[in-house]
Amino acid sequence: MKLATIQVGSQSLAAIQVAMGYLPLPARNLSELMKKTDWLATATKVLDGHSANMLVPVEQAQLLTPVPEPSKVICCGLNYADHILEMGRELPKYPTLFAKFADTLTGPETEISSTASSNVDWEAELAVVIGTEIHQASVEEASAAIAGYTVANDVSMRDWQRRTLQWFQGKAFDATTPLGPVIVTVDEIDPEQGVEVICRINGEEVQRGNTASFVFSAAQLVSYISEFTTLRPGDLVLTGTPGGVGMGMEPPRFLTDGDELQTEIPGIGILQNKFRLRVETPVKTH
Amino acid sequence: MKLATIQVGSQSLAAIQVAMGYLPLPARNLSELMKKTDWLATATKVLDGHSANMLVPVEQAQLLTPVPEPSKVICCGLNYADHILEMGRELPKYPTLFAKFADTLTGPETEISSTASSNVDWEAELAVVIGTEIHQASVEEASAAIAGYTVANDVSMRDWQRRTLQWFQGKAFDATTPLGPVIVTVDEIDPEQGVEVICRINGEEVQRGNTASFVFSAAQLVSYISEFTTLRPGDLVLTGTPGGVGMGMEPPRFLTDGDELQTEIPGIGILQNKFRLRVETPVKTH
Repeated sequence: MKLATIQVGSQSLAAIQVAMGYLPLPARNLSELMKKTDWLATATKVLDGHSANMLVPVEQAQLLTPVPEPSKVICCGLNYADHILEMGRELPKYPTLFAKFADTLTGPETEISSTASSNVDWEAELAVVIGTEIHQASVEEASAAIAGYTVANDVSMRDWQRRTLQWFQGKAFDATTPLGPVIVTVDEIDPEQGVEVICRINGEEVQRGNTASFVFSAAQLVSYISEFTTLRPGDLVLTGTPGGVGMGMEPPRFLTDGDELQTEIPGIGILQNKFRLRVETPVKTH
Repeated sequence: MKLATIQVGSQSLAAIQVAMGYLPLPARNLSELMKKTDWLATATKVLDGHSANMLVPVEQAQLLTPVPEPSKVICCGLNYADHILEMGRELPKYPTLFAKFADTLTGPETEISSTASSNVDWEAELAVVIGTEIHQASVEEASAAIAGYTVANDVSMRDWQRRTLQWFQGKAFDATTPLGPVIVTVDEIDPEQGVEVICRINGEEVQRGNTASFVFSAAQLVSYISEFTTLRPGDLVLTGTPGGVGMGMEPPRFLTDGDELQTEIPGIGILQNKFRLRVETPVKTH
């Protein structure tokens, strides 16, 4: 099943994406829907019983951030073994984790503006969406608590990220992490079998990784995080980015005004975000 | 004015602390109260018009986390100039920031348990409470958006904190950051004039700093953070800890089972938290 949050006229709605459009679900968005413990049964019933006149046609709907109100967004750093090894580094024993707040998220087709940094970089990522509340869960329990997967781009302000040793401030600008376009439930996708994670700028491919190369699988990350904090329906775990970020290029490359940032995971979909550089006095690269 | 969230029987209530007890306010807690833009006027009216029969006597109330539902808790690292200079380091140009989620908070008199770390350390801190929504605010605007101040202890699992370069996982254990006992509004306290921040273990003083020594003032921190993210009523900014943490001792010292952790800011109050070490196989210090 493919789940989305859509805008129809002035209303936002949780919905199931089907071939011809969207089947509305009884909630304003997927965060709200997933707070009800029977959300999956509700969605399945709507999908099984749908009739043509319930359908919102594709052209009447605009895709929004699928889960706009997570209580937690927790991100993993270095997690693609092939990329870590090719850099000559050892595989990490523990996941490097940092936090984002819900305000950092934005829609799958929304413009991203930078007003305070000219060093804006891309990080295509697979995002895990939690489906049931868990705390101190085994890897098996963690696996069972995953509702599905979506696409994210952990757009990063490298100058702010490097001002201090803690990355948070470079990762926390409001409305800079696009998410979506849909959440694909676990029955339809399995990152352990390997899914491609791709980033393009103006059509040019800059990143391509495969989740089969994860150091920490989605379920291992969720289990590890649940050792210290409760995860709830609609919470997000971002699983790290493959090689090919702009910061690693010689010379470093950053997004420029008007760039089309495209983030794709085949089987889930594509984020299409135009980038706007709104810095009045360009910040020096350092 | 001193504001609190209290438990009275099975109910939680926002309240004003007065000499004989507490005056109830129309909300379940201060996070809820502060979402109403006229919250300060409401509280002032209750304080001015109070009659003795409205009072909840001290012995009928238990103090809870004053703002239990912040959308953001943002913490500053190194911020006491005297301590940084005595360590032979240079004063930082930018604040080191990291994030916590609301689940990390706990009450001013609640037991703190560790089930996954034997390297639990203390960090007494002044916490800023935001009173009005701000984004990209000047230092003056930031100052005007501060509702008041409270006491926090950024209790840290040093082994988890040091597993990777990002501190987050050592700072994010649920129910390990005590907050309170009350919020003192800005008309009654000014950290720029200097307030003492003290930590004691079983009565022995281990930390004492003065906010007059801040590298980044409360208003400067709030202004800086607001450059990248919106801060809302009830959000928290923790301002860093003075010297005297256990990790810096020779040999390092950590909390042991049964320790009484006391965190005090004169003019605000004292957090009293008993520590419980619940690790079955003690974790090795590394």
